[in-house]
Parts: sequence; C-alpha cells; structure tokens
Amino acid sequence: MAGRAIYPGNFDPVTNGHLDIIERAARVFDEVIVAVGTNMGKSPLFTIEERMEMLREACRHLPNVSVDSFDALTVEYAASKGAGVVVRGLRALSDFDVEFEMALMNRRLDGSVETVFMMPNAEYTYLSSSIVKEVASFGGSVEGLVPKIVEEYLKRKFGTASQ
Amino acid sequence: MAGRAIYPGNFDPVTNGHLDIIERAARVFDEVIVAVGTNMGKSPLFTIEERMEMLREACRHLPNVSVDSFDALTVEYAASKGAGVVVRGLRALSDFDVEFEMALMNRRLDGSVETVFMMPNAEYTYLSSSIVKEVASFGGSVEGLVPKIVEEYLKRKFGTASQ
Amino acid sequence: MAGRAIYPGNFDPVTNGHLDIIERAARVFDEVIVAVGTNMGKSPLFTIEERMEMLREACRHLPNVSVDSFDALTVEYAASKGAGVVVRGLRALSDFDVEFEMALMNRRLDGSVETVFMMPNAEYTYLSSSIVKEVASFGGSVEGLVPKIVEEYLKRKFGTASQ
Amino acid sequence: MAGRAIYPGNFDPVTNGHLDIIERAARVFDEVIVAVGTNMGKSPLFTIEERMEMLREACRHLPNVSVDSFDALTVEYAASKGAGVVVRGLRALSDFDVEFEMALMNRRLDGSVETVFMMPNAEYTYLSSSIVKEVASFGGSVEGLVPKIVEEYLKRKFGTASQ
Amino acid sequence: MAGRAIYPGNFDPVTNGHLDIIERAARVFDEVIVAVGTNMGKSPLFTIEERMEMLREACRHLPNVSVDSFDALTVEYAASKGAGVVVRGLRALSDFDVEFEMALMNRRLDGSVETVFMMPNAEYTYLSSSIVKEVASFGGSVEGLVPKIVEEYLKRKFGTASQ
Amino acid sequence: MAGRAIYPGNFDPVTNGHLDIIERAARVFDEVIVAVGTNMGKSPLFTIEERMEMLREACRHLPNVSVDSFDALTVEYAASKGAGVVVRGLRALSDFDVEFEMALMNRRLDGSVETVFMMPNAEYTYLSSSIVKEVASFGGSVEGLVPKIVEEYLKRKFGTASQ
Repeated sequence: MAGRAIYPGNFDPVTNGHLDIIERAARVFDEVIVAVGTNMGKSPLFTIEERMEMLREACRHLPNVSVDSFDALTVEYAASKGAGVVVRGLRALSDFDVEFEMALMNRRLDGSVETVFMMPNAEYTYLSSSIVKEVASFGGSVEGLVPKIVEEYLKRKFGTASQ
Repeated sequence: MAGRAIYPGNFDPVTNGHLDIIERAARVFDEVIVAVGTNMGKSPLFTIEERMEMLREACRHLPNVSVDSFDALTVEYAASKGAGVVVRGLRALSDFDVEFEMALMNRRLDGSVETVFMMPNAEYTYLSSSIVKEVASFGGSVEGLVPKIVEEYLKRKFGTASQ
Repeated sequence: MAGRAIYPGNFDPVTNGHLDIIERAARVFDEVIVAVGTNMGKSPLFTIEERMEMLREACRHLPNVSVDSFDALTVEYAASKGAGVVVRGLRALSDFDVEFEMALMNRRLDGSVETVFMMPNAEYTYLSSSIVKEVASFGGSVEGLVPKIVEEYLKRKFGTASQ
Repeated sequence: MAGRAIYPGNFDPVTNGHLDIIERAARVFDEVIVAVGTNMGKSPLFTIEERMEMLREACRHLPNVSVDSFDALTVEYAASKGAGVVVRGLRALSDFDVEFEMALMNRRLDGSVETVFMMPNAEYTYLSSSIVKEVASFGGSVEGLVPKIVEEYLKRKFGTASQ
Repeated sequence: MAGRAIYPGNFDPVTNGHLDIIERAARVFDEVIVAVGTNMGKSPLFTIEERMEMLREACRHLPNVSVDSFDALTVEYAASKGAGVVVRGLRALSDFDVEFEMALMNRRLDGSVETVFMMPNAEYTYLSSSIVKEVASFGGSVEGLVPKIVEEYLKRKFGTASQ
Repeated sequence: MAGRAIYPGNFDPVTNGHLDIIERAARVFDEVIVAVGTNMGKSPLFTIEERMEMLREACRHLPNVSVDSFDALTVEYAASKGAGVVVRGLRALSDFDVEFEMALMNRRLDGSVETVFMMPNAEYTYLSSSIVKEVASFGGSVEGLVPKIVEEYLKRKFGTASQ
C-alpha cells in the first residue's frame, strides 16, 4: 500500500522546487522513483544522462529515492515498476489544466494508478526550469533556486561564471 | 509511512464526489479517517451526528476507512490521531486558492503533516454539497450524485419524495 | 429550433451588462424570456416586482423579449415555457466555476435543455449588480452602467440624488 | 434567426469532445457548419482533407451538420455562409482567455456575428486533440475518446495497432 | 507626480502580507496613506480604532506612511487627500476579479486616480486576515504571520495565550 | 523616489493596449523608459529597429516617455538606467502566472527594483500583439487596436491595404 510512487518529469534541469516535492513525497511514500521522461518537452538544454546525473546528486541524501528514465506512457512505466501512485507538483494556476488533463488521461489508461498532487514550499510557487535557464543564459545568479550541482552544469553550458 | 491519512471536511452532506475521493484515498493509504469538522461552514443543514451517520453508511464497504469528528485545528487533530497526511479533493478552479491557503497554513502550524490533493472522477468536477442541497430543496432528483442514504436524509429534510 | 430561450438571474438590479446579453440573445434566438429567480441571492435590495418593472422598462425596445419570474428549478421553469435553451452571461473568471456547476446540474436534471454562454461587451466584463449597489449606496454615479430606470430606483432607495 | 451557425476549429483530429459540442449545437441551431481552419495551428498531424474526412464520417448521423474548410478570417467566412453565430466549446480554464480574445476580436471585425459558448459533457472537460495524439503516438488506446474513424487514422499514422 | 498614494483596506487585522505591501509602496511612492475603510467587510473582529492602532504600531518604522480611516467612495477619499494612486496587493488568483472590478469602477468614477497592483513576498501569497483569525480562534500560533502587536490583540480577543 | 520606471516588452508590434499602459505610467511616474527586449519572443515579425520606430512615433505626445532597447536581464537594465520600478500591464488571467514568475525572479535578482502592475482600459483586456498580427495577415482591419503608424507597418508587411 502507498509503497512505491513515481515522480515523472522533464527535469531540464531539476530545481529546488522539484527537490522540495521529492523530499515531501519521500516522507509520504515508502519509495519514490524520480523518472525523467525521454520524450517530454522540446529541444531540452540537457541530455537525459545529464538530467539524471544532476537528480542523482541532488537526491543523494534521500535513501528511499532513486532516479530513472523512461520512454513510454507514464502509466505503463508506473505499472512496470509496480508503482501505484504518480506524484505531481502543483505550483501555480497555469499548471492546473495541464496536470488535470494528464491525470485524467492516465486514470483512463490505467485505473489502478492514482495521481496525487503535492504543493511545493510557497517560495517555489513561481519557479520553473524555463525561467532558471533564461536567467542563467544572461549570466544571472540562480543560487538558492537550484541544487549546487545544477548551478555548476548551468555555468558550464552558458560559459563563464554566473557571478 | 503513508499509513494513516485524514480527510477533513464539512460533508453537509457527503456527495458521490467526496465518496470518490475517499475510495481513492483508501487505495493509496493504509488507513483513512474521514473527519467532520464541527466548526467549518455556517448554518449547516445536517447535524454533526447526521453527517457522520451518512458517512458511516456510505463508507461501510471500505474496511480501512473510519468516520470521526473534530473541534480543533486540522493539524492538531491529525497529530492526535498519528496521521501524517491530510487528503483534500481538488475539483475545480475555485477550490484552488482556498485549498492552497489551508495547506500552507497547516504546513506552517505543523511541518510534519503533509497535504496531498486528489482529483475526483471528471463527472464530479462541478459537484458540491451546496448545489445538491439547492436542487433537493426544490424537489429535484439528486440520484447518482449522492449515496442512497443521503437521498433519504434529504427527502426527510425537504419533505415529500424528490420524485 | 433555437426558438425560445430563457435568461434566468437575480437582476438585483439589472445592469447594462445584463442588458447587453439580453440584446445579443434577442438577435440569436426567436424569443427570449428574462426570468427573475425568486429564490436566488440573499437579502436582495429590490423586490421581485421592482426588479421585473426595471427589466420591463429596460427591454421595452426589444419586441421578442418578455419578463417573468419563477420559483422552481431553472430547467423545470424552462420546460414549462417550452424553452430549450438557457442563456447565461460569462463575464470574468470568477463566473466560470459557478456557471459550469449550474449548467452541468441543469443538464443532469433535464438533458433536453441546453445552456449557452454569451459574452458581454468588454466594458462590462467587470460590472456586477453588487458593485453598482455599493457605489450607489455612497452616492456615487452609476450613469452608463445601468439603464436610466435603474438609476432612478437606486436614487430612491439610497436617498437624494447621486450627484 | 438562429438558423445557421459555424463551428470553426483545428480538428486535428476531431475528438469525442468536439463531437459532443457538434451534437449539442445541432440541437440548438437549424444548421451547423463544422469548418476546418486551414491556417490554424502549427505542424498539424493530419491534412485538411483527412480532417474533413474524419469529421464527415463522425457527423454522418447528424442531418443538419455539414463539413467545410476555410482560409480566411472566421467572421468573413461566417458572413460568406450567411451564418450569424460562431459556436465554440469551453472546456477548461485555459480555454477561457484565448476564446474570449478571439470572440471579442471577431465581434469587433463584424458586429453582426455573435459567438456562443457551449459546454461539453464533463467527461470531456480535459480532453484535447493534443493529448489524444500524444497517447496514440505511444501506442496507448484512445478508444472512447475519439470517433471510430479517428482511431483508425491514428493507428495508420503511428504504425501498428494501438492495442 | 507619484507623490501620494493611498492603500485602502479592511485590515481586520493587518497581516505581514499587508505590511510587506506597505513597505514596498513606501519605497515607490513619496507618501503612503494606509486607509481603513469603515464600511468594508461584514462583522469585523476589531473596531476601526483597534485596526488603526495596530497599523500605526506596525508602521512606526516607516516615516512616509500614515494611517487613516474613511467612510466614502475610495476615489473620493483619494481625491480629498490629493492622492493620485491607489495601491492594492495582488496575492492569489481569487483576488484578480474582485480587484479588477474595483479598479475599473474607481477609474470610471474618477479617471485621474490610477490603481497600481503590487505583489507581496511569495511566502505571503496565500495569507489572509480570515485565516489568521480562524487559526487564532483555535489557539494556533500566528507568529511570523502578523506583526507582534496583532499577536497580542488576537490573544486578548480569543482568551489565553496562543502558545 | 518613484522617479524613473521602465516598461519592458516585446512590442511586436505595440498595440493600443500597450499605449494605454504607457500613458497611465507616464502619469504616475516622473519618467518612463519603454524598453524593447531584444531577446524576448521567438521569430518576431518586426525588427528591433522597426519596433522602436513605431513606439517612438506612438509616444511622441508623451514628453516624459523615451524608447530604448536592451539585451540583458531586465533588472540589470533597470539598474543601469537608475530605474527603481518595472511597469507591467495585467490584462487577463493568462498573464497572471507568467507575470508573477517574472516579477518574483526579478525581485530575487535585485531586491531594489519593484514591479508594479497596471490595468489597461477594459476594451483592451483581450488585445494582444499576436491577434493583431493574425488579423492583419488575413487583411482584416486593425483600426482602433493599434496606433496609426503600426497600421501602416502592418500593411507594408502583409501587402496591399487592409481594406
């Protein structure tokens, strides 16, 4: 029961908002698999491998969290992992419709997988991977918004220090 | 872990939308306590006892669900029951702000209690206790929108048969 | 077909936003019945009779519009009038959930009555009976926001001229 | 009066949500023209001809519905067809602003054409052509979400059976 | 120019979210008058005098901020004070329609008074006077959510310590 | 104090909605710099130079408004100009999340720059550069929706007269 949950996403790159959800899910569920969807999003900044690497580093302190990738329907992936729960973060209003559309479609495809929504810390309500990348591309500091490892990856991508 | 969850609410009266959330929560968590808040809402139609009675009858088929009432802060009640999770249904847009306000306040009051949101079946997206009462007060049929026991209670409240 | 439509509401009092919807509906449908719900809303400012009187005066130039009142479920009233369409104005976001809840409930109660939503002129997007009453109660001018007859009724209610 | 309405859209491909709106519109208006906009949307999956073919097949049971395409401003097309009404479906919150923007612009371009919004069945509230295509691209079943003919077209596009 | 702004509200009681807006406004405008509307809201917890007292104490560190009350249309009050700007906080979605309705009505009543919206710190996004009162009424701690002086007033209202 | 404000945007092209905000900002602040972001938006219709040219012409009657472009973080640009305020227009709901995300990020990057939101005239609530371009591309008239100079530029882009 409530044992295993997956937390699927783009994670291009993982932000402290994502990490906040992961930590909360790790307290509620026995095991959490953070799963990078290989087909989600267009023209990603980081490769699947880079995104998984950043996630692994950021989640190192969470013993019941593992990182994986998948190239399938979310519910098929969940079933293949024996996970009965899909975790999603609900930040702001604009997530609402997209998330509900996905949750209802997943329910229709496999009624045994339930989606639960969790709320990040209020300070991450308006934080997204996109704005992090935009700021970093201008050399702006994203300290405190992403894990340390992501700061380093962003610096490498966008050239010299974001100082 | 993820063992015990409470599902607090007004339940004046319980609808099939609430029941749908209860059934989903009962699949995700080991134990679910449906808890009628004695102080929520104004000028209720049914007494706490009536509401609990309807809930008990409607949840009879769910062995890991129990019904209770409370007159305290939600997080204090949750802690007193050893529950680490508060379940809330997210139906439509208008729930969003109210629910987030409550969830953030609860988190602030007790960081060890996590709120998770679940989505009812799409057909219950726009179903509420209020509209059920309004329709019933005009003698309209609410069959299929509430458990059988609630139909009976409503008929008794509003006089002769709703059809 | 599309012959008769009802436009139910509180109309406490009718605003130019309501009137705009009435005029649009009168162009789309053969006949429009503006119907004051006797049970909607709490502590109204105007009596049913006053509201109907203001509506009749404001709609005098619309030959295919009549004014009525009803004390029943909207769909029952529509059926009793042989109307297959319920017209509702959608102004701003906050109308959305309430209107959809009502429309879905009405559909459930009587599948043969269809709700259609119409948009008022943009300048009436944020106009409501409530704000009109609030402004008038302070002696503020509501000229251009309500029909002439309503201005007069408001002046009478709130004392001397809204100058 | 209320005789002829157009229902413009992308229909890439038509879903059961669209079909639900078409059926409702066909009950309210004398004649409904479902019109595929040749310029709407980017990188469509199906050609205009395929989309019209699927629509024709899906609407075969509706005698007062015809299928067409257009490459012009919606209101110009409506005027050229002698249609005084544009029908649009309002599903979820995210439609709201886009639809209102279009409706107001159309009204400005031609004040004699009125937009009316209709609500699909609740189970289609979060259904879109995009998610249908996404699921089908992974071989997921879209049975019950699209007309039979669309299921076949999708299978042909995405290779072997979506079983 | 931009000299004087009023920040009207209920402030029943002032929260740290209000205070955050006041501090921001005090940096943008030369002078800010925080104005308690004597007619806003129903069945307030605190008297106008109590609310002004708490505001005065909470704003003591802001030399260009004063506290006042008014019993008139907001724009009339603004004009009487020679203020060309009304400041309002926009927290969450549910504020949107209400605030826009007020701003447009004010603009209509007096085109020379402009409304500007400011955003509180993200941690106050879902904070309101209502939830503060609800929590305090159960003896819950509202430390960090309201100024010190308000904590004391709340304790006095709701009896023994909110410890 | 409140002296200098920047109003950053895409302005591809400037609409009467933008111009309305500019005029309001010019009344509230001592000096307003309308700043075309060279990096915002994808595949613009007009070059930076064309957009600035149209803005300059449209703002000719506003002595305290100047036009500029920038290729940096908004807050860095603001700081380089000695501007303490960023002005943004809030039209409709869909702006909300995007604008708040940007405002919070900007605040984080430079706490001394404050974002204030202003509301355009209601008739511009659903007006955007995108819909203006779409209508113009079909030869539809955009008179009254954009400054005269923009009408001319659009005609030149899309060929013969938009008559």
